[in-house]
Amino acid sequence: MKFENDLIIRAAQGEVIERYPVWLMRQAGRILPEYRKVRASLSGFKELVETPESAAEVTVQPVDLLGVDAAIIFSDILVVPEAMGLSYELIEKKGPWFENTIKSMDDLEKYAQTNFDVEDRLSYVLEAIKIANKEIGGRVPLIGFAGAPWTIFCYMIEGQGSKTFSKARNILYTNPTLAHELLTRITDITIQYLKAQIEAGAHLVQVFDSWAGILGKEQYAEFGLRYLDRIAKAINQVPVTLFAKGAYNSVADLAAMDCQTIGVDWNMQMKDIREVVGESRTLQGNLDPCALYSSHSEVEAMTNNMLDSFKSRRHIVNLGHGVYPDVDPEKVKTFIKTVKNYEIQY
Amino acid sequence: MKFENDLIIRAAQGEVIERYPVWLMRQAGRILPEYRKVRASLSGFKELVETPESAAEVTVQPVDLLGVDAAIIFSDILVVPEAMGLSYELIEKKGPWFENTIKSMDDLEKYAQTNFDVEDRLSYVLEAIKIANKEIGGRVPLIGFAGAPWTIFCYMIEGQGSKTFSKARNILYTNPTLAHELLTRITDITIQYLKAQIEAGAHLVQVFDSWAGILGKEQYAEFGLRYLDRIAKAINQVPVTLFAKGAYNSVADLAAMDCQTIGVDWNMQMKDIREVVGESRTLQGNLDPCALYSSHSEVEAMTNNMLDSFKSRRHIVNLGHGVYPDVDPEKVKTFIKTVKNYEIQY
Repeated sequence: MKFENDLIIRAAQGEVIERYPVWLMRQAGRILPEYRKVRASLSGFKELVETPESAAEVTVQPVDLLGVDAAIIFSDILVVPEAMGLSYELIEKKGPWFENTIKSMDDLEKYAQTNFDVEDRLSYVLEAIKIANKEIGGRVPLIGFAGAPWTIFCYMIEGQGSKTFSKARNILYTNPTLAHELLTRITDITIQYLKAQIEAGAHLVQVFDSWAGILGKEQYAEFGLRYLDRIAKAINQVPVTLFAKGAYNSVADLAAMDCQTIGVDWNMQMKDIREVVGESRTLQGNLDPCALYSSHSEVEAMTNNMLDSFKSRRHIVNLGHGVYPDVDPEKVKTFIKTVKNYEIQY
Repeated sequence: MKFENDLIIRAAQGEVIERYPVWLMRQAGRILPEYRKVRASLSGFKELVETPESAAEVTVQPVDLLGVDAAIIFSDILVVPEAMGLSYELIEKKGPWFENTIKSMDDLEKYAQTNFDVEDRLSYVLEAIKIANKEIGGRVPLIGFAGAPWTIFCYMIEGQGSKTFSKARNILYTNPTLAHELLTRITDITIQYLKAQIEAGAHLVQVFDSWAGILGKEQYAEFGLRYLDRIAKAINQVPVTLFAKGAYNSVADLAAMDCQTIGVDWNMQMKDIREVVGESRTLQGNLDPCALYSSHSEVEAMTNNMLDSFKSRRHIVNLGHGVYPDVDPEKVKTFIKTVKNYEIQY
């Protein structure tokens, strides 16, 4: 596939780049009035996710309006547990909520199905990818994504967000057999799902382990990394990014996996992570999303500051977390413009 | 002051101890049916906090019923913002909620008062300390506590818990003058409050920085550590414990402060923290609270495992976070018994 702008793919693969590529987690949605208009025309977030034309439309908006170097398909990590039998709602200001949760092995048959056609049950995402690519017309690559098994596991056990995730972590101690069985099932489906996204037209994929940071090193190795590793090994067609938020203790293990890029959250020090990872992987991140609340000149200064701290060309610029909904899109443009104007040293 | 059992004070000061002392964060409350009975007799959590006899009663319960090596006064870190003018409610299953929050400098006069008599406005805590000590009768020391300025700041700005604390962090970028003024005010009152607790009879004090982990290293240094340092310097009468949850990047800075003990959360590796801290400070923690969901034999094995990993006598055993409400008190007893039976090597 030829792109007008393939910077992000070259950066992921460690090739020579003229400048650092830039995009934002959660760029498709939230901050743009144009997004809110599309969403307001539908019944809510879920209808938007499930309507390919609309999902594609908001996927392409940041390419047109912000000038990012990649699109990311508008969707939600919770489409996977839903496909497996656990449907969810998104409650305004509260977040995701599942009516049912998994409490025992007996629940797996109904709520953690694996015996279904992923391409069929998640066809709306694949269709959105195809439409989005048509609309992008080869200007930039399109990123596909999925939640990491550990993070999806948390939702399937807890049924909602949590401060402690103590129900999900309880299972690791009291029923590790159930934990591994469920994680295996999520992993199987996730691999099929990512491959289907690639088949449909995703040019890179990112796996989000949002709750990596709530496990200690040993438990994360057993219940998190083991399954991320399986995913990384299974996906060879396109560059893979692993973003394990808060997994300070596991960066070296992540970097040893079969992936191209490691996501760096805003609390990690890019310099420290580079020391651990070396030059064998691209690092993605990590401006604090709250930095975009500052004035334009401060956004520019902080962005330049971050860019100055990079000691190699193996970087994809992003925030260290999804962009916050109340950020002024003009500040996002300043962030992007600053990255684009920066003269790369390496 | 002479105690029948002063292990925790000697451990904090790095003196020789016969065995490791043990207590649990949140031991006063939550898990004990005896606590729930006291609470049920009152209108709710806040009345319990504000009724010295009852607060003292639940403070002493774990000494009688669990055999811990220290009591900790039953209270809440949010009594400080309330004393400063921002009253809060505790909403069942949701957590703390403030009707008003601080949005500008103008709000400080009303909602971040400093011109009041701390001993008078928080007399109910001081009274509870006195009653608790009478009931403990010198069996074990009593721990006083306060929230760290950064964590209190978060609640005073956000008005409730948050996944991102993006409003509180917004202020750090857009109005650092307001941030420092508010943090200074909280620090001033917190120092007076901790001194008053010591005067009333607290034999150690612990400062909880629950939200330390949401800031990057530089911002935590400027808006968190700076004020913790002021508190540590101001409190010389009794041993001080600093517990900055998730502050991986700042352990060395914490250990350089004028404190005796560093709290270690369950995601940190005790071995790594010891390497950074050396032998100049006592480490407190850090069994995963979820480990107590396991069987008795597993609790015993995991506790012994943790104790085996200690390479010095400078330890106070605790969980790596507050005990979870749905933990069986019998498992807590197994945890405590295992620590008490462990033969110390150093």
